[in-house]
Amino acid sequence: MSQKTSDIKFFFNPKSIAVIGASPAPEKISHAMLENLKRTGFPGVIYPVNPKYKSINDLRCYSSISEIPSDIDISVIAVPSTVVLETLKDAGKKVKGAIIVSGGFKEMGDEGIRLEEEIKEIAEKNEIRIMGPNCMGIYDTISRVDTFLITSDRIGRPDKGGISIISQSGSFAGTIMDELAYEGIGVARVISYGNRVDVGETDCLEFLTDDDATKVVALYIESIDDGRRFVDAASRCTRKKPVIAVKVGRRDAGVHAAKSHTGAMTGKYEIYRAAFKKAGIIEVNGYEELKDACKSLNIHSPVKGKRVLIITDGGGIGVSISDACDNSGLEVTGLSEEIKKRLASKLPSFCAVGNPIDLTGSVTDEDYLTALEEGLKNGFDIAIVTVLWGPPQLTEGLVDKLKEFKAKQNIPIVICSPGGKFTKRINSLFEGKGMPVFSTPESAVRAAAILTGK
Amino acid sequence: MSQKTSDIKFFFNPKSIAVIGASPAPEKISHAMLENLKRTGFPGVIYPVNPKYKSINDLRCYSSISEIPSDIDISVIAVPSTVVLETLKDAGKKVKGAIIVSGGFKEMGDEGIRLEEEIKEIAEKNEIRIMGPNCMGIYDTISRVDTFLITSDRIGRPDKGGISIISQSGSFAGTIMDELAYEGIGVARVISYGNRVDVGETDCLEFLTDDDATKVVALYIESIDDGRRFVDAASRCTRKKPVIAVKVGRRDAGVHAAKSHTGAMTGKYEIYRAAFKKAGIIEVNGYEELKDACKSLNIHSPVKGKRVLIITDGGGIGVSISDACDNSGLEVTGLSEEIKKRLASKLPSFCAVGNPIDLTGSVTDEDYLTALEEGLKNGFDIAIVTVLWGPPQLTEGLVDKLKEFKAKQNIPIVICSPGGKFTKRINSLFEGKGMPVFSTPESAVRAAAILTGK
Repeated sequence: MSQKTSDIKFFFNPKSIAVIGASPAPEKISHAMLENLKRTGFPGVIYPVNPKYKSINDLRCYSSISEIPSDIDISVIAVPSTVVLETLKDAGKKVKGAIIVSGGFKEMGDEGIRLEEEIKEIAEKNEIRIMGPNCMGIYDTISRVDTFLITSDRIGRPDKGGISIISQSGSFAGTIMDELAYEGIGVARVISYGNRVDVGETDCLEFLTDDDATKVVALYIESIDDGRRFVDAASRCTRKKPVIAVKVGRRDAGVHAAKSHTGAMTGKYEIYRAAFKKAGIIEVNGYEELKDACKSLNIHSPVKGKRVLIITDGGGIGVSISDACDNSGLEVTGLSEEIKKRLASKLPSFCAVGNPIDLTGSVTDEDYLTALEEGLKNGFDIAIVTVLWGPPQLTEGLVDKLKEFKAKQNIPIVICSPGGKFTKRINSLFEGKGMPVFSTPESAVRAAAILTGK
Repeated sequence: MSQKTSDIKFFFNPKSIAVIGASPAPEKISHAMLENLKRTGFPGVIYPVNPKYKSINDLRCYSSISEIPSDIDISVIAVPSTVVLETLKDAGKKVKGAIIVSGGFKEMGDEGIRLEEEIKEIAEKNEIRIMGPNCMGIYDTISRVDTFLITSDRIGRPDKGGISIISQSGSFAGTIMDELAYEGIGVARVISYGNRVDVGETDCLEFLTDDDATKVVALYIESIDDGRRFVDAASRCTRKKPVIAVKVGRRDAGVHAAKSHTGAMTGKYEIYRAAFKKAGIIEVNGYEELKDACKSLNIHSPVKGKRVLIITDGGGIGVSISDACDNSGLEVTGLSEEIKKRLASKLPSFCAVGNPIDLTGSVTDEDYLTALEEGLKNGFDIAIVTVLWGPPQLTEGLVDKLKEFKAKQNIPIVICSPGGKFTKRINSLFEGKGMPVFSTPESAVRAAAILTGK
């Protein structure tokens, strides 16, 4: 299959998309797809296909693919599983690739497995590349393709950014996309490939390796198709950009769950760990870690060392971050006497001048800059800056001040700001300026740890 | 000191509060305290004390404590550390207890330690119980006392509920209080005792043991004063209600951080672990776990077994929860053939009938009830119900349906609903009905695990 790989580029730059099973009825899920392509402003040609209609949304509707007058790059198939085969046969050699979003295949047992085999045969015969079945397909901020069968009022779509996500699971991809959109984190391409009768994680990884729009690759993996090929592709990718991966279905319970999900045989977790390590992939431990890693790597570059400077205006949260750093293998190294002296001369006397630097409840915006400026001279790799918004002298002005400081130097500044209503309002100001905020001591430390390759 | 313990009850039911250092100027932090007592509707007498003013907020202002015509239950002291001693001397035997919120003591080194010693002497001589210094004092939904020096627009105050929090750190207490308020989780009493020259964790724990308003106790501990007494008190408390604790300052970095925070010598972590275990305290690993535990124990009762039923409408999130259960020692046991058959006959054919039960993207509100009703017959201890809001047929009606189902039976139902804008809107509907929502697979599993005693 390897020689086919270059073929999948068209999925990420299609000139035309046929939507099989398109419907004008808003309650039909296939309606969402036409709406989504309209919303993203897909610049190519869209062909709705449904024998019941003459036109949908001012677009001419075709009764079948064979009726469409030109060749088609992508055919998105959202019809019952029993009709999928027929649809593919009808397409003949007219389409380059099909995204089969319909479920009801391998994950349903023997009959589904047989159906998938037939799909594979037809696809090979007609040289059609297949994504799916049982997938969400592609959300792409570069090509403006959006085949996710869910309206954007329910699952938000992120703006353009540097993260690309490859996920066997559609719900995992959709959920993390929704969260990233909510927190103002952008993505390049999100790919949900489902049951993988053809296109899988390695094809996608190979494409993203050479994709300039993708700065970071995040993988959700239930199983890997061809281990050796995957490790080769991933090794090449990690030389160019960070690749993070979560392997689910790790132990007994997860293994069973994955099988009934995408029909994946998840295999021994230890083998996956070794493969990730060999390929230079940063393994994360689950959904939380993957999300925090995406947020962090979206703006910060990986660092060489593990020394963390902690700045806080609340001692207890500072201690909690120190503990979490210890747990994650990050080093909260002390300050030199010289820097302590300089900090003590520049900060109010009640501040605790160590690591953490505790600015206390009497903190001002300016104190944070002093602490960062002087503290970072001590040779740290990362700063975690905790802002609790109780102290009355703190103002929104801190958002711009931290942004300006960040722009002047290269050390990643991870912002930690746990809290309720007031805090969340300010956090969205940070996010609006491209600075992600982590809401717990542990998530801030996860965001820092990922930059060290863990 | 043990014989003094019963004395601290008045802190939680004061008839009168003197606010030393009270100010009419909104930019002064001591102003917030008068505002907070007004907001909570404290029913007792309030005496502002400040020689600069004749009255503040329509309350007569006294130039000193000695000028106040009657005895006082609590004197809250928010003046510079250098003036605290003088203030206490002036109080003589007129006050039962003082909450010293001022910082600038043990955490600042030798001079501060000397000051604390003097405070201790005066307090013992005049039989005044002391909370603090360097603390936030008390937020109490029963007595309506609020000595936190932060306005409620910055740090929200939870409604009345069953959780009481004992915290050495004021910022930790304030932050978690703010988060609980934001998510609609109520508290009984929140106590921040800071440098602990007198009242400490064990006094508070003893009080809360016999406090009917407190259903669950959460402890944030940097150090423990008297290990043996603590274990005795905690053992008595855990026989009546769940006690959870986070010990911070666990390893090198955290130990140093704690010392410069409340001057606490944190001691060997392993000793704390053993003490917690002996006393039946459920240890949690940090801020995230403590918060999730509070949310969970606020409405769910501890359970006897570890068998978890997972219901989901997104396979990938279901697999992630299975993995997280495995990691936490929870058991995702299979369903009996009989129950599988019944579920298969009642649910649409594309559902995966196992554990997890995957209702897929075609899910309806009713499917969740069917899955719960039949699935729980298989003898589970806890259900984790994941709701992803992408599926178009799901409606807000599910909130009431789940609430009704919950009311009919005793098995804790932990709701997991990760996502962005749409999801967060619905989550607040759940929260408004007293059902906390957990936003990641891992946090839902933490919420479940805490119910099993971990």
